[in-house]
Amino acid sequence: MALKTVLKFSRGFRYQSLARATQSFSTHDQQDGGSWNRTKHSGNFSQVAGAAVAGVAGFCLYSYLNEPAVSAATKEETLQAGDVKEGLPFYSLDEVRVHDDSKKRIWVTYKQGVYDITDFIPKHPGGGEKIMMAAGASVDPFWASYGVHKNADILKMLETYRIGNLSEEDSKVSLHNVADPYDADPRRHPALQPRSLKPYNAETPLKILADNFFTPSDLFFVRNHLPVPEIDLASYEVEIEGVGVKSMKLNLEQLKKFPKFTITSTVQCSGNRRSEMTKVKPVKGLDWGQAAIGNASWTGVRLRDVLLAAGLKDDQPGVEHVQFEGLDTDPSMHPYGASIPIEKAMDPKGDVLLAFEMNGEPLTRDHGFPVRVIVPGVTGARNVKWLGKVIVSGKESDSHWQQNDYKGFSPSTDWDTVDFSSAPAIQELPVISAICDPVQGDKVKPVDGKIPLRGYAWSGGGRKIVRVDVTWDQGKTWGVAKLEQESNKHPYHWGWTLWTMEVPVPPNAKKLEVWVKAVDSTYNTQPEGFANIWNLRGVLSNAYHRVTIDINTGKK
Amino acid sequence: MALKTVLKFSRGFRYQSLARATQSFSTHDQQDGGSWNRTKHSGNFSQVAGAAVAGVAGFCLYSYLNEPAVSAATKEETLQAGDVKEGLPFYSLDEVRVHDDSKKRIWVTYKQGVYDITDFIPKHPGGGEKIMMAAGASVDPFWASYGVHKNADILKMLETYRIGNLSEEDSKVSLHNVADPYDADPRRHPALQPRSLKPYNAETPLKILADNFFTPSDLFFVRNHLPVPEIDLASYEVEIEGVGVKSMKLNLEQLKKFPKFTITSTVQCSGNRRSEMTKVKPVKGLDWGQAAIGNASWTGVRLRDVLLAAGLKDDQPGVEHVQFEGLDTDPSMHPYGASIPIEKAMDPKGDVLLAFEMNGEPLTRDHGFPVRVIVPGVTGARNVKWLGKVIVSGKESDSHWQQNDYKGFSPSTDWDTVDFSSAPAIQELPVISAICDPVQGDKVKPVDGKIPLRGYAWSGGGRKIVRVDVTWDQGKTWGVAKLEQESNKHPYHWGWTLWTMEVPVPPNAKKLEVWVKAVDSTYNTQPEGFANIWNLRGVLSNAYHRVTIDINTGKK
Repeated sequence: MALKTVLKFSRGFRYQSLARATQSFSTHDQQDGGSWNRTKHSGNFSQVAGAAVAGVAGFCLYSYLNEPAVSAATKEETLQAGDVKEGLPFYSLDEVRVHDDSKKRIWVTYKQGVYDITDFIPKHPGGGEKIMMAAGASVDPFWASYGVHKNADILKMLETYRIGNLSEEDSKVSLHNVADPYDADPRRHPALQPRSLKPYNAETPLKILADNFFTPSDLFFVRNHLPVPEIDLASYEVEIEGVGVKSMKLNLEQLKKFPKFTITSTVQCSGNRRSEMTKVKPVKGLDWGQAAIGNASWTGVRLRDVLLAAGLKDDQPGVEHVQFEGLDTDPSMHPYGASIPIEKAMDPKGDVLLAFEMNGEPLTRDHGFPVRVIVPGVTGARNVKWLGKVIVSGKESDSHWQQNDYKGFSPSTDWDTVDFSSAPAIQELPVISAICDPVQGDKVKPVDGKIPLRGYAWSGGGRKIVRVDVTWDQGKTWGVAKLEQESNKHPYHWGWTLWTMEVPVPPNAKKLEVWVKAVDSTYNTQPEGFANIWNLRGVLSNAYHRVTIDINTGKK
Repeated sequence: MALKTVLKFSRGFRYQSLARATQSFSTHDQQDGGSWNRTKHSGNFSQVAGAAVAGVAGFCLYSYLNEPAVSAATKEETLQAGDVKEGLPFYSLDEVRVHDDSKKRIWVTYKQGVYDITDFIPKHPGGGEKIMMAAGASVDPFWASYGVHKNADILKMLETYRIGNLSEEDSKVSLHNVADPYDADPRRHPALQPRSLKPYNAETPLKILADNFFTPSDLFFVRNHLPVPEIDLASYEVEIEGVGVKSMKLNLEQLKKFPKFTITSTVQCSGNRRSEMTKVKPVKGLDWGQAAIGNASWTGVRLRDVLLAAGLKDDQPGVEHVQFEGLDTDPSMHPYGASIPIEKAMDPKGDVLLAFEMNGEPLTRDHGFPVRVIVPGVTGARNVKWLGKVIVSGKESDSHWQQNDYKGFSPSTDWDTVDFSSAPAIQELPVISAICDPVQGDKVKPVDGKIPLRGYAWSGGGRKIVRVDVTWDQGKTWGVAKLEQESNKHPYHWGWTLWTMEVPVPPNAKKLEVWVKAVDSTYNTQPEGFANIWNLRGVLSNAYHRVTIDINTGKK
């Protein structure tokens, strides 16, 4: 199904020839502009199939280890892993290929290294079945896709399974086969602050985040889980299918015939502000600062209207969720996926959009061109980009990101004890706020004994911010910030609130620690610190934001 | 309007003859069973009118000072205020009555005291206009209604305006006129723990609160703002009126012709757990423990269905709120009132009921017989009891409780700086939890090194509890409690969650401090402490609940 979706876009996807090759290597499609066309395939069917499958394993390993920071790949271990190790035997690709079942032990190669990963199989977080498919082949093409794999921890672990070296000749052949599915990613604004490059994840510079009620699209944080798909508008269609609906395919023109709506909605990553939580105790995930959030106007058509047109009835028996699939897929052709509860999808006031414009312009590639889902009030991960399919279902999406990621746990739950099925997938996010300017460590000269602060506050589920409190003396005094927000709309308020506050600076103070917390329309507020909300994935990181400002006293 | 509503219930209301008397003293209704019938009126029209109006002032003063604890009335000042004060002149009632406008100064009497309150008028929280109506008369009949007025602070302040004594003869006449509108309040279960007697407010014994998923009606916390009205079912009607509806009156039989629904809904007072917040810094309000909350099944008809029958359309222009008026009224005949947003009222899944049964039995008088509103997920104050009127409107209720009470403020906002118009009326409540058993200071013997805890958790707006965390070592370790809750219902979960957890007791520990916090489906959680959520009314008191248990080590 993922394959079928992808195949529609002849110029669209860099994995597709690989996927087709796993079906029948001889039917290689010459018109494909993807990376595998540009390389010379010297392998046979089983080699490529093995490689495709090693990608699945690599991908699961990647998911398990969760996007370490960009800088991790530069460590010394990275340069050594896969290099020739003296004193170990040399093997040919043909010799490696034999080791594709557990009776003969399971071998894989990485660069010029040969590894027996048989004993890792039961420990593999993605399960034994998937990793077994990697047997007898190279992991390089897939680790090239996921640059973050070149992480000290993974490579160190890999080297513990080292048994030999790949012959120099075969390793050259192997490496030449590696193309980079991220080659076709769009160019980004250089002001964006990357947290990982492949996939690309970056946030707005914090200092300018509160400058604009509508975050400029090119500076809006980017959260990609996979390479950005190349989509040809001429052949683009979104498929609607599932329980209670007549299957249909809509191209952009057909989609635009539904009534058009524009809403303001903040989109935030579940992991926003993770870098603060990780200071309490390390967590796994992108090291987001406070700007994995942005506010935009979104134009599109209502999912409700599309589903009604497809024949869905309100309160249709057997329907509980609406699943979305993106056209971004992993090396095994599984698409990015997520789902939302049917009540949100069908709420006449829920404003779930199939959006094609952001801030009045067509979506950029990084933000989901040509069509993405906007689920206002709900975590970014459910706002699926590059929408390929909408599935009405009795079940949640079975994707990794719905089932085994983006969930919250007790502070005492660790990777040895976590049971992802025990927690609900994050949908609506809790109340949050941050100070955007000044940023930590800025040196600021008070004017009339005061320093102006600016920031944002937001709450999920359309809960309006009703108050933002700021303290400059560890909570002895709380000032009430001035709010900038859209006028009241019943019953939901999807956009963020910007706030400003002038805080008094005590005479001769050299530093000033300021804290912010927000209160939403349900009078929920933020927890004070991170220790008691810590969770292994570093999501829902919404404690008070605390910033220390250096005071420019004007004295030398 | 309030008067009109009340007059329908000939046996129904203890203030009614007073209200009528303020219109025309000569038309006194002999069939009325209210308190004024049983007394001998010796005054004339202006005296009674003045007294009625003094009640308004007294009531506002009462509201301002917010229900101090039952014990306050027993202080020494109470016994002295209004007693004859030697060295001051004596006045007759006729002499007092002359002082009914500011040119002649404004006098009132309390017991045998005469007071010139002219200078208090601009300081009166209820505004100058209302207190002016009290001119030249006695406040006793109204302070009898509000026993809590006999508070040291109020009486002390009153005495600062003392100018003389009322003649003994006139003071006897005055006092004989005082009837107690609380005489007709129902009998209550002796196990209830009163927090004030007039009006009656009481909570369930905490230790038994988590014993029953459905709190028994007779043990369910009672939150009355005024005397319990006596309602004759034979003449009872609820009026529907306002924007976009055809006015209509429905008796109980007519109401019951609408489709009948039963829901589980927790009702909680905004001030639940106030006694914990007040320890940080005193707040004004009933000194609630952790049991101003209960869970029941409620049977009734949907407000939405009734409003649709009255002709209201979804998204009717000019309609933003639905106001409710109770048949409980203050001495000036103003009913208890509240309102909810129209979206909640009309949400097909919002489940707002005009309820006539609680836990399968007709409502008791303390819980709103014959009909009350149940607004699931919304603070108790909007769940108006003894429903007299439903008003569809563009505005919120202008009642004191909607406008100048039940709102949250910054910890630095005090009674000198508070602007009630700056905060929204509390509707949905934030996430909360409590330990019910053991209670603070219980001595418990561990079994197999463990102590079982039980408690509740709940969140407003239908947000289901997804996790309850308990720590026994100040947050170093958090255990996950076992939950008892109704099975998942889309999209709202109105009932509470009971939880149990066995906590380990370190060997030789003599005390154990345990904390609880809950997490709801939006992953909002509770603030850690009260200092930073403190507010002058002591509402929204949802910090971690912390209980210290004495350990029975079995050693002497």
